[in-house]
Amino acid sequence: MAHEFRMTHRVEFADTDMAGLIHFASYFRYMEVTEHAFFRSLGFSVMMWERFKVGWPRVRVECDYKGPLRFEDEVEVHLRVREKKEKSLTYDFTFRRLKPEPAAEVGRGSLTTVCVTRDGSGVMKATAIPDEVAARIETAP
Amino acid sequence: MAHEFRMTHRVEFADTDMAGLIHFASYFRYMEVTEHAFFRSLGFSVMMWERFKVGWPRVRVECDYKGPLRFEDEVEVHLRVREKKEKSLTYDFTFRRLKPEPAAEVGRGSLTTVCVTRDGSGVMKATAIPDEVAARIETAP
Amino acid sequence: MAHEFRMTHRVEFADTDMAGLIHFASYFRYMEVTEHAFFRSLGFSVMMWERFKVGWPRVRVECDYKGPLRFEDEVEVHLRVREKKEKSLTYDFTFRRLKPEPAAEVGRGSLTTVCVTRDGSGVMKATAIPDEVAARIETAP
Amino acid sequence: MAHEFRMTHRVEFADTDMAGLIHFASYFRYMEVTEHAFFRSLGFSVMMWERFKVGWPRVRVECDYKGPLRFEDEVEVHLRVREKKEKSLTYDFTFRRLKPEPAAEVGRGSLTTVCVTRDGSGVMKATAIPDEVAARIETAP
Repeated sequence: MAHEFRMTHRVEFADTDMAGLIHFASYFRYMEVTEHAFFRSLGFSVMMWERFKVGWPRVRVECDYKGPLRFEDEVEVHLRVREKKEKSLTYDFTFRRLKPEPAAEVGRGSLTTVCVTRDGSGVMKATAIPDEVAARIETAP
Repeated sequence: MAHEFRMTHRVEFADTDMAGLIHFASYFRYMEVTEHAFFRSLGFSVMMWERFKVGWPRVRVECDYKGPLRFEDEVEVHLRVREKKEKSLTYDFTFRRLKPEPAAEVGRGSLTTVCVTRDGSGVMKATAIPDEVAARIETAP
Repeated sequence: MAHEFRMTHRVEFADTDMAGLIHFASYFRYMEVTEHAFFRSLGFSVMMWERFKVGWPRVRVECDYKGPLRFEDEVEVHLRVREKKEKSLTYDFTFRRLKPEPAAEVGRGSLTTVCVTRDGSGVMKATAIPDEVAARIETAP
Repeated sequence: MAHEFRMTHRVEFADTDMAGLIHFASYFRYMEVTEHAFFRSLGFSVMMWERFKVGWPRVRVECDYKGPLRFEDEVEVHLRVREKKEKSLTYDFTFRRLKPEPAAEVGRGSLTTVCVTRDGSGVMKATAIPDEVAARIETAP
């Protein structure tokens, strides 16, 4: 049972904007890349349509920005499972700049994703997280 | 005095992902493009460093997803000024799919941006919104 | 029969990078958005899998950069059909900054896209452009 | 003296599009990320304005696509210095999918970047590559 995952990202040039800092939407890229690495660490791909006939659209995301990130900075993203429900998962993310030092928290985010299947006409409908997946994930203490 | 702005966007191919829908982070692109068009409608560029020596980093963003958007859908983004404070602006956004019909609300978001200046060493510090800008924007009723 | 199409784009904030100019890869976004608008002008969506059972992956792209584009600049992208073959289309693109004046050519690009179908196991294979589509497009004189 | 560099990338979800494959423009992200890692391996940041008063805009890029890349595939990007001139560098890139096996070449690209300085009015002008940088890079044999 896993409830957290850490991953370090480097701020790439294409993630910046003309203000000279990381573009705010890039934080969501890092959240998602970390979420998908978390799934791989459990033995799954988040693209589990063939295996389990479910997908994972987002229903809510948010981010608070607490400090600047710049090109080539290294930032650790710490994912924690805030809530595992029957049909959805909510993650909290903490962004911590590791380099350049001194290390500092530079943001907090969250993401709620719902497990869906599709009916015959392609309409998405929330469904229970597959047992095999649910068995590997738990709400963080 | 302005407190709202509407802009229609088309979902472009690069805004989609392999799930066949718009990527969730693309909503933030549409929020920002709409915000910047709102500023232009008031006679300003959001890049007002040369004119007023201030910039507009984000301190908080969020989005709730209420329905799918697909390639070539047309979506109206309705910006409203939720709160004008001395040093920051908070916008609410409603996403309404116009085409294909029937029209439907497909999301709600918000974005808080703070007016900053930089001291001699480049550190950003919140500062009052320039009078000329503040005079054109008001909190929505 | 159509062989050209023009579309004006505005350089958005997320399309820039910390060098203060448009990021070079954004030119490809503008090429693609223009290509898809060209298809719509002919009565088609480039996503014509359901209608014609074909897709349009790219086999070659290139771009030469001749001058800077900045945030909020307006750039006209002029698409011309350089070559219509049985199974592929090659477009040439000219990028012309309209605002701020004076207008100036700021780049040239090209994109070759091939018409493919998929066999039973999902492998893509080049196929003839559907007659209905081919009938609407011609090589530019 | 260095003339090549290898870096492995994973195809992330945001790099895909609704066709189910990597979006073609994502290849340019991987080229650039690899180029910047090459510079770091030599002891430089490509953002060397403060240190050397030069920047590196692109003047030409191209890419040929030879096979599909999908979500979570691992692709090795091999950068080689095709040509070092007084004021510019041209790199060739080979894209090789490592996973899933069997490994296969999936693309080739190139990128020409020019060393520029800015005059008093901000206009960019080509200039010689700083000696300290030029001393570390050589044309591949």
